[in-house]
Amino acid sequence: MSQEVRDIAQRTKRASRAVANLPAERRSDVIVTMARLLEAEAARIIAVNAEEVAEASTLVEQGGMTSATPDRLQLNECKIAEMVRSMRAVAALPDPLGRVLERTELDDNLILDKVTCPLGVLAVIFEARPDAVTQIGALALKSGNAVILKAGKEVERTASLLVELMRRAFRECELPEDAVSLVAGREAVQALLGLPDLIDLVIPRGSKQLVEFVQSATRIPVLGHAEGICHVYVHSGANQETALAIIDDAKTDYPAACNAAETVLVDASIAAQFLPKLANRMRSRGVRLRGCEETRAILGRDDLEPVPDSDWHREHGDLVLAIRVVENVDAAIEHIHRFGSAHTEAIITDDNSIAERFLREVDSAGVYHNASTRFADGYRYGFGAEVGISTSKLHARGPVGLEGLTTYKYLLRGQGQIVRDYHGANARSFKHARLPGPFTDSTR
Amino acid sequence: MSQEVRDIAQRTKRASRAVANLPAERRSDVIVTMARLLEAEAARIIAVNAEEVAEASTLVEQGGMTSATPDRLQLNECKIAEMVRSMRAVAALPDPLGRVLERTELDDNLILDKVTCPLGVLAVIFEARPDAVTQIGALALKSGNAVILKAGKEVERTASLLVELMRRAFRECELPEDAVSLVAGREAVQALLGLPDLIDLVIPRGSKQLVEFVQSATRIPVLGHAEGICHVYVHSGANQETALAIIDDAKTDYPAACNAAETVLVDASIAAQFLPKLANRMRSRGVRLRGCEETRAILGRDDLEPVPDSDWHREHGDLVLAIRVVENVDAAIEHIHRFGSAHTEAIITDDNSIAERFLREVDSAGVYHNASTRFADGYRYGFGAEVGISTSKLHARGPVGLEGLTTYKYLLRGQGQIVRDYHGANARSFKHARLPGPFTDSTR
Repeated sequence: MSQEVRDIAQRTKRASRAVANLPAERRSDVIVTMARLLEAEAARIIAVNAEEVAEASTLVEQGGMTSATPDRLQLNECKIAEMVRSMRAVAALPDPLGRVLERTELDDNLILDKVTCPLGVLAVIFEARPDAVTQIGALALKSGNAVILKAGKEVERTASLLVELMRRAFRECELPEDAVSLVAGREAVQALLGLPDLIDLVIPRGSKQLVEFVQSATRIPVLGHAEGICHVYVHSGANQETALAIIDDAKTDYPAACNAAETVLVDASIAAQFLPKLANRMRSRGVRLRGCEETRAILGRDDLEPVPDSDWHREHGDLVLAIRVVENVDAAIEHIHRFGSAHTEAIITDDNSIAERFLREVDSAGVYHNASTRFADGYRYGFGAEVGISTSKLHARGPVGLEGLTTYKYLLRGQGQIVRDYHGANARSFKHARLPGPFTDSTR
Repeated sequence: MSQEVRDIAQRTKRASRAVANLPAERRSDVIVTMARLLEAEAARIIAVNAEEVAEASTLVEQGGMTSATPDRLQLNECKIAEMVRSMRAVAALPDPLGRVLERTELDDNLILDKVTCPLGVLAVIFEARPDAVTQIGALALKSGNAVILKAGKEVERTASLLVELMRRAFRECELPEDAVSLVAGREAVQALLGLPDLIDLVIPRGSKQLVEFVQSATRIPVLGHAEGICHVYVHSGANQETALAIIDDAKTDYPAACNAAETVLVDASIAAQFLPKLANRMRSRGVRLRGCEETRAILGRDDLEPVPDSDWHREHGDLVLAIRVVENVDAAIEHIHRFGSAHTEAIITDDNSIAERFLREVDSAGVYHNASTRFADGYRYGFGAEVGISTSKLHARGPVGLEGLTTYKYLLRGQGQIVRDYHGANARSFKHARLPGPFTDSTR
């Protein structure tokens, strides 16, 4: 198995060189061709998927599978139309490659360009959601990368068909089909994670357990986020109506999303006044409340489950909200750093100087003033398409667009310059003049 | 040991919050204070170091240590003056924090800023070179990070004294001294690498073995490069005098540097004419040559050692040059991708279209046209100070300046906006207007 996966990765690496060098139009053409094939074969895809989901459901009834709900496995006409629409949208995005990020004149006729280029080979490991196959395929190709996919076993046949259509699109465009491959089975994951010489980035899409397993099992860089434990802090200077509306949105708009709020922190000085309003609003929305001792004292101990310390960093992903009374902004920030996942946090206040302090001091990918944590999303940020949300600090942080699938290289164009002329006696000086852009990368 | 190191890391994490929030002037003040203390205590540092180096030399004579030469352990007045100068230069660099990289108007009064901020806690593991302690300390502090250092055992006492002076500088500036700490011993390295919740980045400085060990032993992101196997490709359209001058510089200016050339690739059509000139030039410089069969046939089999396939990816770090005759630019690129380390490669040619192809297709951190590979260096690129050179593609690639020790976060400032208003029936549209800069981060 391990040798088989290495062979696939080697072919993918070779194909990645070809894809990296394609002009933007040709990369977009393949994506548009994929979308057309997907549309044409929708009925067949739905049939294969329905069969597979039915088998998975039987397994669930027999107690054999608990990890994914049928909803996350199933494709229907509506989902396929959305996949097709999304691929065409990715094809239409501006080219992320060949952007000259900086141009510096090191000396006369010695020009340094920092230019964006693809990463190379991406390995994407996902558990359910077969729609992720085409989305990640389109994003990878748009950014000039090749990709190896590993699907969860419940959707292996669906994924296999989707990948076959993508490979057909490459052939129709007279390009190497090995730019997209599928591998199957748990051993294949282990084999992929052991190929740092061939794979440039691993993207796990699924449970926290999957992400943490991948992170601990490979030397290859990993792009992913394990958890979203988002906080809304209601400062004493908050407009309380604004606070109620934002908490309502952050908790109930889509509770399973990683950018949904899990915990509300409330300043002690307004707790007695604000908490009953919050409790009413949340209960009218069907949200179950949990709280610290002070919250329970205000709202009624019988109605509120307590929150043990170990539970403040629990992601409910459901209509459950934890509430804690805090002394002030310092205590709120300390709580967030201690229990949060560095995803997205919001402060609600009309006091701008407190808000600016919160924005500066909170160490999370997103820090908001008077806005819902649900804005943390590549589409809402204006990226056009989202690779995922990263709670890592390296490379890409927060919602990640196409840019996260690129790197850069330095191109230096000279006329025979050597370093020896720039040191020792009578050394030439560097100019180091940053030239104002924008510039076009002349290699493309 | 493991608990002790965790305690230190926890104190460092706490101190990192304080350092991250300091205005630029205060961070620079600490660095300038460090430089002053270093200058004042130069004699004591040299004495401690001399004692330690003498002991290490005795060990070497007894066959007990082979990893580091005394030259890389030793501090003298000249080196300390350079350390002091370098710290002051770092203090004078522009602030890397609070730079607004992008500002986007998502909607009326809903403004998204992408702002640079520190990573948090850096762990720096180095083998010899005690001068690295102050350099990395200054860079870490300038970029608002706290740092835990682990020195090689041969320079532990020197490093300990240097760290003590840096901690004194923090105290003198009324700031938490825990922003810089030293740990000792191999077990401490293992303990550090097991703290992904407290340490944000590991920087190994030393041998290829050290870097690879660190990469395989931790989930924490690693910034480093294992090898520099740089190539110079002499295309048939090269000005041969230019080629000789560049190869001379790339090989002999500083052979132990990672950006020195290891292999020269020469087009077959000019090999018979060019190789004898190259051999003369190299031999006059004391460079030993090795070659492929065709090179040996031209230059004399008795004079040239052959290069087995496994040896094309060997970093000599010495006055040794491997030469290979290639068919054309495609064969050159294939050789580079197969045997190189993705550090820096150069093409020598007067044919611009071939050069542009080489620049586009070669997948290395630096790709040069008619310039020496020795330019691959943060100082020469104009970064002012260098953290190191990265052959990883993620986060930072090539020479890494202060920017590589920062990340960014998204600050969103609203007036109570919620996401529910932007979907469903009568949804508001996003504006997603990128505002032209430059902007100042108002939290600092």
